[in-house]
Amino acid sequence: MAEAFRFTVHATDGRARLGTLETPRGPIQTPAFMPVGTAATVKGMKPADVRAAGADILLGNTYHLMLRPGAERVARLGGLHRFMDWPHPILTDSGGFQVMSLGDLVKVSEEGVEFRSHLDGSRHFVSPERSIEIQRLLGSDIVMAFDECTKHPASHEAAARSMQLSMRWAARSRDAFLRREGQGAALFGIQQGALFADLRRESAERLVAIGFEGYAIGGLAVGEGQQAMFEVLDYAPGQLPADRPRYLMGVGKPADILGAVLRGVDMFDCVLPTRSGRTAQAFTRGGTLNLRNARFAEDAEPLDPRCPCPVCARFSRAYLHHLFRAGEMLGPMLTTEHNLWHYQQMMQGLRLAIAEGRAAAFARDWVQAGD
Amino acid sequence: MAEAFRFTVHATDGRARLGTLETPRGPIQTPAFMPVGTAATVKGMKPADVRAAGADILLGNTYHLMLRPGAERVARLGGLHRFMDWPHPILTDSGGFQVMSLGDLVKVSEEGVEFRSHLDGSRHFVSPERSIEIQRLLGSDIVMAFDECTKHPASHEAAARSMQLSMRWAARSRDAFLRREGQGAALFGIQQGALFADLRRESAERLVAIGFEGYAIGGLAVGEGQQAMFEVLDYAPGQLPADRPRYLMGVGKPADILGAVLRGVDMFDCVLPTRSGRTAQAFTRGGTLNLRNARFAEDAEPLDPRCPCPVCARFSRAYLHHLFRAGEMLGPMLTTEHNLWHYQQMMQGLRLAIAEGRAAAFARDWVQAGD
Repeated sequence: MAEAFRFTVHATDGRARLGTLETPRGPIQTPAFMPVGTAATVKGMKPADVRAAGADILLGNTYHLMLRPGAERVARLGGLHRFMDWPHPILTDSGGFQVMSLGDLVKVSEEGVEFRSHLDGSRHFVSPERSIEIQRLLGSDIVMAFDECTKHPASHEAAARSMQLSMRWAARSRDAFLRREGQGAALFGIQQGALFADLRRESAERLVAIGFEGYAIGGLAVGEGQQAMFEVLDYAPGQLPADRPRYLMGVGKPADILGAVLRGVDMFDCVLPTRSGRTAQAFTRGGTLNLRNARFAEDAEPLDPRCPCPVCARFSRAYLHHLFRAGEMLGPMLTTEHNLWHYQQMMQGLRLAIAEGRAAAFARDWVQAGD
Repeated sequence: MAEAFRFTVHATDGRARLGTLETPRGPIQTPAFMPVGTAATVKGMKPADVRAAGADILLGNTYHLMLRPGAERVARLGGLHRFMDWPHPILTDSGGFQVMSLGDLVKVSEEGVEFRSHLDGSRHFVSPERSIEIQRLLGSDIVMAFDECTKHPASHEAAARSMQLSMRWAARSRDAFLRREGQGAALFGIQQGALFADLRRESAERLVAIGFEGYAIGGLAVGEGQQAMFEVLDYAPGQLPADRPRYLMGVGKPADILGAVLRGVDMFDCVLPTRSGRTAQAFTRGGTLNLRNARFAEDAEPLDPRCPCPVCARFSRAYLHHLFRAGEMLGPMLTTEHNLWHYQQMMQGLRLAIAEGRAAAFARDWVQAGD
């Protein structure tokens, strides 16, 4: 399994790493940004267009998919890749984060999490074992351990208790994963410990003792702010094995990703480029544009004159402004596509910059330009 | 002008005609179906995908475009083709039909039509002269004369009065069109006369006396039913010049189009394939599918096993069912794309059938299969 998911670091620049994570469904160039395909679709995008934007891998949400259309149903239909026509790698989250964000509808015990569906109020139970089973039914290439995302803010005591539960669940996730016949998937463990370095260290050590194909940094981007997140990222990646990919979950804005890469993180996912695209926010090298703004009504420029994407090659800000004003689907479609290109262009630029030893300068330039 | 819009009939089969309408922006193979791009977009489709489906020409709605983003604005942005990235021919309606469907908000006089915008209640006035000006500002390739679409049902007297107003407006449309510098556009006149053969004849004669590059059959598909429409189409196309294209406005279902082609009509437009796509209705050779139906939840078949479209090549009914159930944009996007392919496949099949002298059999087979 580890062989199928060989991770090679080609170059480093400070703590930033240029690498490749090989998978049975193709290589993932790192640092990598994973577009989010919550319900078996990157909203408003055909999969071939997501691929053309430069994505090597998508993220699918276990919580949403287990409720609709259902993991067993996806399995009967040939798995998630075939279902959504994405033949490249897919990473699935464990469902834990989204289940626990349901608030009052959730009951956490040692065994797992009981919750009510946000769709129809039906009762469900997810344990580490069931989460792994669901992810294997979906056909995920990179399976995530089931964990509790510690609430922010958390006292040291609460963070420790939560982290230790996640570590017991990590061990159960690993056992469940290994019990299933190998189908060429990897399992990533998730470090917790909130903003406490000692807990992060303990979590990392317990995960490494279990052994995973990759390691995620969880419990960040939950409201602590960029400065507090970067303070954790100043040490947390170094607590994880250097020969395995490191994945910062749910991050983030371009500046967050750039800062995290400079601190040694290899993989990211975030709804920001897609969600922003649906609400008329376009990322550009010159800052974020709100396309509903009247100042774009006769702006014949593309979204970003330096962007090589098909949207910038064909359409003006004035046209996109019109589409959003008229409530036309094509507005979200095109702005999402551009935003995904923007993110992937940033990742590609970062990878080149790391290879050339100028990652910090690249990050500074990109952020100063307005992101 | 007539030279630039040369219409050649390559073959006939009964009254059905196989032809080509040449335009400065490329040829239109007839019988032709024109997808509707109301607000400068075929809803949910990128223009390149509309083209790939087989469309030679799009329809734009003058009423919607004059209100938003505004004809002068589109002109300042380089015209509708550039604005929406559709370099192929565009036909614009005159705005009359949609203005008059506003009901109480409309006041018709000899001079033109006063109405209030459905968007913001603002007052507007459209005359034949203003309609032609708007269509030329948009950069339309095929401009439609401004007419009154006679309400259904209409008495002979009311239909005559309405038709005669439309004929006076047709003459004013032609004058206004010729006064504008030639920019390689054609003007089509519109026959009215409701369900009365004598009025249809008078209308045709008056239009021919004015002289147009093409002729539309208006005032049908307004609630009279297929049988009454076909009764008019049994004679109306023959009242129009044989050497010019004949366009049946706002039609229709596949069976309507097939029946009209057999009666000598060359061009069609309708929102049906796009609107149906957004409401989970898929046209297939085996009948129309309602993709929300639970029976498709685990149906691994494509929408139509005989369809060569990219959607049928990649996605199952089960996936499309899931997308509609989950409220995902990709459901309308993909179903619209398939439906446009379905319509264009029908037109392509019809053209081949006319060339081979089996148009009636083709139409019978297509309709019997469930459309």
